[in-house]
Amino acid sequence: MNDKIEPRVLKGFRDILPPAEMERRRFISIVEAVFRSFGFVPIDTPSLEYSDILFGKGGGETEKQVYRFTDNGGRDIALRFDLTVPFARFMAEHVNELPLPFKRYHISKVWRGENTQRGRYREFYQCDFDCVGADCAMADFEILSIMVASLKSLGLSSFTIRLSHRGIFNRFLAHSGISGQSVEILRLVDKLRKIGADEVKSQLAGLIGGENAERVLDFIHPEVDFEKTIEKMERLAGGEAEDGHRLRTVRRLMIEAGLEKHFVLDPSITRGLDYYTGVVFETFLDELPAIGSVCSGGRYDDLASLYTNQKLPGVGASIGMDRLLAALESLGASDAGAGSSDVLIVNAQDAESGIPFKLAQAFRLAGLSCEVYTDRKKAGPQFAYAEKKAIPFAITDLGDGRVCVKDIKTRQSQDFDSLEGAVAHIKAACKGNA
Amino acid sequence: MNDKIEPRVLKGFRDILPPAEMERRRFISIVEAVFRSFGFVPIDTPSLEYSDILFGKGGGETEKQVYRFTDNGGRDIALRFDLTVPFARFMAEHVNELPLPFKRYHISKVWRGENTQRGRYREFYQCDFDCVGADCAMADFEILSIMVASLKSLGLSSFTIRLSHRGIFNRFLAHSGISGQSVEILRLVDKLRKIGADEVKSQLAGLIGGENAERVLDFIHPEVDFEKTIEKMERLAGGEAEDGHRLRTVRRLMIEAGLEKHFVLDPSITRGLDYYTGVVFETFLDELPAIGSVCSGGRYDDLASLYTNQKLPGVGASIGMDRLLAALESLGASDAGAGSSDVLIVNAQDAESGIPFKLAQAFRLAGLSCEVYTDRKKAGPQFAYAEKKAIPFAITDLGDGRVCVKDIKTRQSQDFDSLEGAVAHIKAACKGNA
Repeated sequence: MNDKIEPRVLKGFRDILPPAEMERRRFISIVEAVFRSFGFVPIDTPSLEYSDILFGKGGGETEKQVYRFTDNGGRDIALRFDLTVPFARFMAEHVNELPLPFKRYHISKVWRGENTQRGRYREFYQCDFDCVGADCAMADFEILSIMVASLKSLGLSSFTIRLSHRGIFNRFLAHSGISGQSVEILRLVDKLRKIGADEVKSQLAGLIGGENAERVLDFIHPEVDFEKTIEKMERLAGGEAEDGHRLRTVRRLMIEAGLEKHFVLDPSITRGLDYYTGVVFETFLDELPAIGSVCSGGRYDDLASLYTNQKLPGVGASIGMDRLLAALESLGASDAGAGSSDVLIVNAQDAESGIPFKLAQAFRLAGLSCEVYTDRKKAGPQFAYAEKKAIPFAITDLGDGRVCVKDIKTRQSQDFDSLEGAVAHIKAACKGNA
Repeated sequence: MNDKIEPRVLKGFRDILPPAEMERRRFISIVEAVFRSFGFVPIDTPSLEYSDILFGKGGGETEKQVYRFTDNGGRDIALRFDLTVPFARFMAEHVNELPLPFKRYHISKVWRGENTQRGRYREFYQCDFDCVGADCAMADFEILSIMVASLKSLGLSSFTIRLSHRGIFNRFLAHSGISGQSVEILRLVDKLRKIGADEVKSQLAGLIGGENAERVLDFIHPEVDFEKTIEKMERLAGGEAEDGHRLRTVRRLMIEAGLEKHFVLDPSITRGLDYYTGVVFETFLDELPAIGSVCSGGRYDDLASLYTNQKLPGVGASIGMDRLLAALESLGASDAGAGSSDVLIVNAQDAESGIPFKLAQAFRLAGLSCEVYTDRKKAGPQFAYAEKKAIPFAITDLGDGRVCVKDIKTRQSQDFDSLEGAVAHIKAACKGNA
């Protein structure tokens, strides 16, 4: 008779085993170090919020994809589905306690009851960073330069940030007399990379007529360089204005910082959402364009309008952690396959001795991670354990201060007259690999 | 007319502002570095699980304190209320993929609909580490030594780990003929520190009679030293056995590692829960005993019995992050008050210049965190901003490669002929504080 409960996880959820979780934490610590080096600070907000906070007074499409329920106190609550809405609520609530501009990052989980057939998970990380309370080209540029620094710190060098300005796009729509259909137009333009220019044009034609569709296609097509592209954008939008000036200033700051090679002015970037009002951007890996944007964002002029009359303009970006982790692995830029530690101390069967712990401590003091095998097994299974955990070296105590170092990959052994010698040997080897 | 939604969080939940969140992340990175140095690796499990996984087929007391609901697919699900139950499910599901002994840590959030009147939060971190798949004194000792290393790394030196063995306690109950009341007895003994010996004795007397109550009080009272205490425990439990031998071996390993001063054999420690079968322990800060145990745990002989027939013995501990963070602050051992960065680059009003970013990059390359002020304000508000964010130094570009360094605390300024000079000056100052 078996009365056991079948161990299983919910559809769309997953366990993260140590190799993947080590990689995830390495990723987080790398981008976090970049954010901190720019003076961005972390916050946290509750995973659960009142439903009216998350969905507004209306509701709509978003609502169906969320975990919403009534708690034991009869409150209508839900798990957050992104970090932006809680951040807006946070800013409205705390704006008077915070120094402005407020530069924060937030790396945490969000939940969506999304269709799992497209390989999506219902629980995933978001990694957002924003500067709120300032509206200037320097703030725009800073977010873009943090994106570059983050990707470089992750070991990526070939990527392109495609940049545009929603203000010019909106002026273009108004100038063309098609502002009334802006939501649908934005939605279609946003699909350009997915469905192709011809399909976008044909669907646009059905919406706003053939001539206007032509005009939109002309507007969103980048010219040979920044200057030619922005000139066309301004011309089609009715002339020069503050928005074009902003883009030119951001471009100048990029050149001064030597970062311009990572940027392309691409008027087809709109980010769909109504929310954005200024610069908008998406980032593509040159070697893996098909995975889509790995870091996107833009400027908005009113973050928290649902909760406060105080205008809070800002600019921010979101790093697509899961996409980037997959990309790093397929580009061989991940740390996958790294051992759970540098050294395993082999344990004399049944001795229950303090010696392994003393040896381990010497390795740890030298900055190496070192595990003691804490079970009563023969040496063979202990070496197999090291192999399974990708631990590169195993140490056996030989008495009289002497130790044997076994290289787990080559299976070769070397005796050392002193522990210090073995520590130095392994430290040099691990440094070589790092 | 105001149609805004009032920005607010749910009762029992809270926003974490940057100073507290920086402290929390510092805490996590310190203990995580310790775990990794011992070869313990991270895992993650879903925040949501099937209710039968979390509560078993029965249900009971725990259930009332959780967030349990039906998802859009009609599934009976709940937010995890601890990390132990999901870990048991994880081990049952993945045991064949994992090297044993499996040494993992898991630092993540859990949710409980607890009464908030006692100052408890409904969302909080747990920080657990366990070694599963081995039953030996070395494994017990390793968990205890990680506890010591973690507390020391956090800057704590005066603490006492109170240790006992549930096996001896159970033998004592059997030998005294009161095993039938063991659950209630354990619950009462566990309250010793809260309600005092007299109250425990009087309640015990009501349960098992005055003579037996006397015996229990005698058993749980520590003698002058380890040897005297364990002798009494064994005598009252019917004689020597494997459990006492285990405690003596753990004690010997402590002495060999020079850690024995942090440990006291205290037979009143039982950890209440049925779950434990071997060593059990709680940790108290000598200077703040009233906050209760800051790190507790013990050995269990069957982690995943709900889900599998495979016996999985293990030993583990849980660090009370919120308690320890509060303790570190009140002991002045926290990093509270640390600046959001080391340096602020003052920005010439309205210049939208690339110079501040160049200056900032020089500080970052030297390993300092450096923020550019990215708004159009006069110098005064920029210095006030640095003060509010506890940034110790502000840099103003003077042209021709010269910069002025302002010490925000003393308000004193010093000019440097080169940026390198300023970087070296601040680097030395920040090192002195670290």
